[in-house]
Amino acid sequence: MDFKAELKRHTTRVERGIDRHVPRPDTRPVRLHTAMRYSLEAGGKRLRPVLTLAAAELFGTLDDSALPAAVAIECIHTYSLIHDDLPCMDNDDLRRGRPTAHKAFDEATALLAGDALLTHAFAILAENYSGQLAAALVRELADAAGSRRLIGGQMEDLLAEKKSDATPSELEFIHLNKTAAMIEASLVMGGLVGGATETQLAALRTAGRHLGLAFQIIDDILDATADSATLGKTAGKDAKTGKTTYVKLHGIAESRRMAAKNTDAAVAALAAFAGTDAFLRSLAEGMATRAA
Amino acid sequence: MDFKAELKRHTTRVERGIDRHVPRPDTRPVRLHTAMRYSLEAGGKRLRPVLTLAAAELFGTLDDSALPAAVAIECIHTYSLIHDDLPCMDNDDLRRGRPTAHKAFDEATALLAGDALLTHAFAILAENYSGQLAAALVRELADAAGSRRLIGGQMEDLLAEKKSDATPSELEFIHLNKTAAMIEASLVMGGLVGGATETQLAALRTAGRHLGLAFQIIDDILDATADSATLGKTAGKDAKTGKTTYVKLHGIAESRRMAAKNTDAAVAALAAFAGTDAFLRSLAEGMATRAA
Repeated sequence: MDFKAELKRHTTRVERGIDRHVPRPDTRPVRLHTAMRYSLEAGGKRLRPVLTLAAAELFGTLDDSALPAAVAIECIHTYSLIHDDLPCMDNDDLRRGRPTAHKAFDEATALLAGDALLTHAFAILAENYSGQLAAALVRELADAAGSRRLIGGQMEDLLAEKKSDATPSELEFIHLNKTAAMIEASLVMGGLVGGATETQLAALRTAGRHLGLAFQIIDDILDATADSATLGKTAGKDAKTGKTTYVKLHGIAESRRMAAKNTDAAVAALAAFAGTDAFLRSLAEGMATRAA
Repeated sequence: MDFKAELKRHTTRVERGIDRHVPRPDTRPVRLHTAMRYSLEAGGKRLRPVLTLAAAELFGTLDDSALPAAVAIECIHTYSLIHDDLPCMDNDDLRRGRPTAHKAFDEATALLAGDALLTHAFAILAENYSGQLAAALVRELADAAGSRRLIGGQMEDLLAEKKSDATPSELEFIHLNKTAAMIEASLVMGGLVGGATETQLAALRTAGRHLGLAFQIIDDILDATADSATLGKTAGKDAKTGKTTYVKLHGIAESRRMAAKNTDAAVAALAAFAGTDAFLRSLAEGMATRAA
């Protein structure tokens, strides 16, 4: 397996899927649909939708039947970034080197474009799947993106920023929900489209949880150790703002051990799909190497 | 049929449904779930969920099987009010005499509570319905609340406010989408739960469109003619802000004729359910009388 070629194959499919399943920018109201596309097309690694496509392929689903689910997940991820960047939240002017949505348009348009992407994710699922599969996908996505998980994690993150110190248990709640929930859902939704059994879905959920935690811990380590040029964003931001991170609570060496432990746990869970899991295993291991 | 008793019966069911289908305020994060409940429990007429329950009863669905759909619609309506009230939108401090969510909590909490209610609407549908019915309900709600309808209408409304004059066709787009879309969906979702045929769903959609337009025209007339005490909110606000309304474009007398015409069209569409439509007919006619 050529990991880079496989990754490219998946991301190309995701870009095509976004173009296919999101209204064209000239749809009325044009300003709203232009803003939705602006944020969706800002790119990024497309980690979550790639996980969905790769999870579906574990079950031999090689056609585009998981693509709408993958695009729905990217719509949710993009909406959460637009709303997180708003002045009343993180107040960020730039994302991946481009003006954030409320800078490129205005706050009201950004708010509505986020609302619209969130809503559209569910429209995509309802339009492209039917019966029990549609209901299961909607349920998985609504739970992962809901008040107990993605939004709940964001809320606790905001509350933690106001306190001088978050506890390890608070940090875990934040990252299990703000980061890991959508990574879990990405794998599980691919599994649902692929026809996974309950046992297989549980293995995907476990893999997603550990992958999500590893991803977040590595992000914290890189913020503390890499330079801005390598990161492509301002390094050392966490220490400057006094944000509670794995590095702040546990130190670099212990954080590296925790990242490795979560990566190992993710790879172990993927072993349930031995024979077809090479891409996902490489992805997990490659992520861990970034912070070594 | 005793209209007031029937209305009371439906609203009581809606209040109970909200309590049953929305997470308790002590769910973690408590601040987020408290804010969601705060806005949901601010009350109001519960027009949309009552329409859903009444539409289901047209098909003999007298039990609570349409209640989750009704609550999902109220979650969407409430989220749209929370986001509309934010400083970057209408910047309202009060709604129904109580501080708006961002005043009672803060902007970030209000933003997230809105996002969470929007997401939870789809969770309710996926958890309480199965198979094709679940998919059809999600599709109907996501379309009505989406970028071409509810959110699109809100976007065009904001853009129209910045211009000195909106055209009659722009005003119609705004109200067909900002107001009528969710009223249509309320009736159609009740019909879906009740097992309506395609023809019956089309009749409900037509009734909802006209009811929604009548509702909005009457709102414009009352703003221009009633006093604040009668309205329970500041009267004459539209004229003061120069907002384009039916009254501004067409005058009071012609607006009254348009409201009556839409009410008649709604009642005519409901005649497809002759024998069981007494409550919905009374509701439509009672609404029209308000502005006479």
